[in-house]
Amino acid sequence: MERYDIAIIGTGPAGLEAAITAKLRNKNILLLGNEELSTKIDSAHEIKNYLGLPNVSGSDMRSAFAGHLKAMDISITTDRAAAIYAMGDFFAIQGHAENYEASTVILATGVSAEKPFPGEKENLGRGVSYCATCDASLYRGKSAIVVGYSAKEETEAAFLAEIADKVYYLPVYDGCDTAPAGTELITGVKPTAIEKAEGGLMALKYDNGETAEANGIFILRENIAPTDLVPGLEIKDGHVVTDRKMATNLAGLFACGDITGTPYQYAKAAGEGNVAALSAVSFLSGK
Amino acid sequence: MERYDIAIIGTGPAGLEAAITAKLRNKNILLLGNEELSTKIDSAHEIKNYLGLPNVSGSDMRSAFAGHLKAMDISITTDRAAAIYAMGDFFAIQGHAENYEASTVILATGVSAEKPFPGEKENLGRGVSYCATCDASLYRGKSAIVVGYSAKEETEAAFLAEIADKVYYLPVYDGCDTAPAGTELITGVKPTAIEKAEGGLMALKYDNGETAEANGIFILRENIAPTDLVPGLEIKDGHVVTDRKMATNLAGLFACGDITGTPYQYAKAAGEGNVAALSAVSFLSGK
Repeated sequence: MERYDIAIIGTGPAGLEAAITAKLRNKNILLLGNEELSTKIDSAHEIKNYLGLPNVSGSDMRSAFAGHLKAMDISITTDRAAAIYAMGDFFAIQGHAENYEASTVILATGVSAEKPFPGEKENLGRGVSYCATCDASLYRGKSAIVVGYSAKEETEAAFLAEIADKVYYLPVYDGCDTAPAGTELITGVKPTAIEKAEGGLMALKYDNGETAEANGIFILRENIAPTDLVPGLEIKDGHVVTDRKMATNLAGLFACGDITGTPYQYAKAAGEGNVAALSAVSFLSGK
Repeated sequence: MERYDIAIIGTGPAGLEAAITAKLRNKNILLLGNEELSTKIDSAHEIKNYLGLPNVSGSDMRSAFAGHLKAMDISITTDRAAAIYAMGDFFAIQGHAENYEASTVILATGVSAEKPFPGEKENLGRGVSYCATCDASLYRGKSAIVVGYSAKEETEAAFLAEIADKVYYLPVYDGCDTAPAGTELITGVKPTAIEKAEGGLMALKYDNGETAEANGIFILRENIAPTDLVPGLEIKDGHVVTDRKMATNLAGLFACGDITGTPYQYAKAAGEGNVAALSAVSFLSGK
């Protein structure tokens, strides 16, 4: 398997600045994220304090960032990290689509506004999963409920349905009128909590008081909490702890952008991405 | 005297990002620096890793930054800080041209490549001065040697010559062929060290082995060391110590950009300016 020098997880301003800085230093990089870069940027109405781009709309900023990637011939690998493991002298990255290896990792996945459901964390890996493609094989002949936070998750649900016996898809976003292939659509309810049920089943409670049961419940959000993504990562108040060089408690793993704490600002994120990339470069040269 | 909410010292990327962010938060700001923004930026050949501005020349970047200030109606006060004193609930800023007061200060003066001369620090305030306009009155009827690091210092030397008895001007840059008004030009030598001499005089040693004497020696550089600028400021390895919120050891005083340490990068500087401004805003709201 190809071993990248630096794997950058996330395509917001922190990840992108890290990517251009690492590329300039001739590093072999993997940039994992979305072709659309960042839904947060795209939905921004107007950004006034990113120095050098006065008064831009979110889509203008996205275009400027995309143009920068293009000018430097940097491509995005469209995938999401499901788990990152420190293996000693490298990191193993389990993606939804593929697995990867890198000598260093820069975590720039941002923060998620969504809070976990009661019972979600407690049952993670014991009936609750964040990655349908990763865990699909465990559901052969079984049933699952997939809670999707964006249209991107429909593909994951359809993939799961190829293996599992029965898959229910519950979109918590607007505009999903058709069930992903092989699944049954659940509409008109919102999930509120997860519990263990009889016979090894999991129960998903709805806001109308009803409950659905299945062997597994998949919660597919854009971001997963950094502690769930990287075992052993030091977190404080929901943010990854870093020093001024953007180093985390795990040697070779750096973090930048919203994931490291407030303020949630484009300039702050980009600045940290820059520092994280140069710290990773320095770490590599010290190996 | 008008008391500003936030005084921002320096017009490189850190100071400018701090200014636009503070202005957006409706703060009454003083932005102290150069109309030309930053000589360092201007002299940069090509900048490739400031996200959103791919492959720009230094002057393109300066234009983009200047355009941002203009779009937000932010003006620069052309002056330099000679000293900043923490006065309890505000800061007194001694400029070369005027004095100012502010509730908080953001230090973004960058780093200077020049090292002090042997004997310079030891005699600071005792025959060595960094501000001709501040200390001119002490030199009535006396003599002084002014070592100027850029053409901007010629005005200071000329002002000093209006008050002092005799002023020698030693430019350590190219292109100064005419003595500033009222001064005598010294050429063909470079200063190497400063010593105390007989009769309360100071001696400036030259690289040709000769020595010149005067009552005072003025060393006029673009930047002065942060410890000389702000008494009591905590410094480590030549850089201002800050936490992740860009706070220094002095309550209400924040620092950002190159002055806080490596990497010396535009994106890093701007990111820190953004954080420093929001920390200052937060400090003000807590007062």
